Amino acid sequence: MISYSFCPVCSNPLEKGHIDGRTRMFCRTCGWIHYRNPLPVAVAYAVNRKNELLVIRRAHEPAIHEWALPGGFLEEGEEPHEGCLRELMEETSLHGEVERLIGIYHRHVELYGSLLVVAYKVVVSDHEALVLNHEVSEGGFFSENNRPTINIPLHRHIIEENRRLENLSASSPGSML
Amino acid sequence: MISYSFCPVCSNPLEKGHIDGRTRMFCRTCGWIHYRNPLPVAVAYAVNRKNELLVIRRAHEPAIHEWALPGGFLEEGEEPHEGCLRELMEETSLHGEVERLIGIYHRHVELYGSLLVVAYKVVVSDHEALVLNHEVSEGGFFSENNRPTINIPLHRHIIEENRRLENLSASSPGSML
Repeated sequence: MISYSFCPVCSNPLEKGHIDGRTRMFCRTCGWIHYRNPLPVAVAYAVNRKNELLVIRRAHEPAIHEWALPGGFLEEGEEPHEGCLRELMEETSLHGEVERLIGIYHRHVELYGSLLVVAYKVVVSDHEALVLNHEVSEGGFFSENNRPTINIPLHRHIIEENRRLENLSASSPGSML
Repeated sequence: MISYSFCPVCSNPLEKGHIDGRTRMFCRTCGWIHYRNPLPVAVAYAVNRKNELLVIRRAHEPAIHEWALPGGFLEEGEEPHEGCLRELMEETSLHGEVERLIGIYHRHVELYGSLLVVAYKVVVSDHEALVLNHEVSEGGFFSENNRPTINIPLHRHIIEENRRLENLSASSPGSML
């Protein structure tokens, strides 16, 4: 994770100080404070009409070469579910509709530090071809028995959480959120 | 919202460029790019055992002097529900337990730009005194009929969303998430 040494507002060197309960870098000249917040990421648990899960193989860090759920950073100005669909579309050319919010989680990665991960269940349109962009080396829809192994603990957890929510919905059909 | 003019890594002036689909400031010298992501905020729909809602009056921008739900920025390294309880505790000295995730929303404010707002329902411990910090000028628990008017559209929406989720739970008791 890159650390900041200079003030991005006035270019003077930053100093360490105890501010709002934490050690933070700040600028003595103009008063700018480097608050470090989790970076928001949206992840798609995306299925086709046969309920096969879309799994992609990452072509970049973090977790390069690992099988994963598609997703990426939210941009300024977008609703989180829109960011989820945008990332899905950019990585795979697939469009979809958000069916539900699965959950929101913290994950730490070396490269970026804290991530705030928002996970949605998405149902993708049929009749669209999967076209992978440069962020992805392989990808496809897999039934549960044929799925590549997903090693990222949070992505495994999201798959489990979705299963739990679907079981709840099945036992009380009126409750789909 | 403050804009950046200098590279926080090497202090050289930033330039505008078209990067990853958007206009972004970047450093030609060291390659640093200013990605702008929504700032994550946690908000508490906090009730006591009588189901009265905790509403506070904000003593700082954005929305200074407005009645609102308590909350604040998530810090690096914390789970979002933990950040929600921490903010509640800092602003009001009250401890609580998260009962459910209500939802996640985008909000734009002049001061900070994009916020990513995570809302939780929290049940606070009884027998604790409400002690407000400097961020809050008034506060208390109010029944629905006696509540001060909340003008922040997203906070009104979160209250409505919680009502909708509680009605769903009431109609199918097995579905509480």
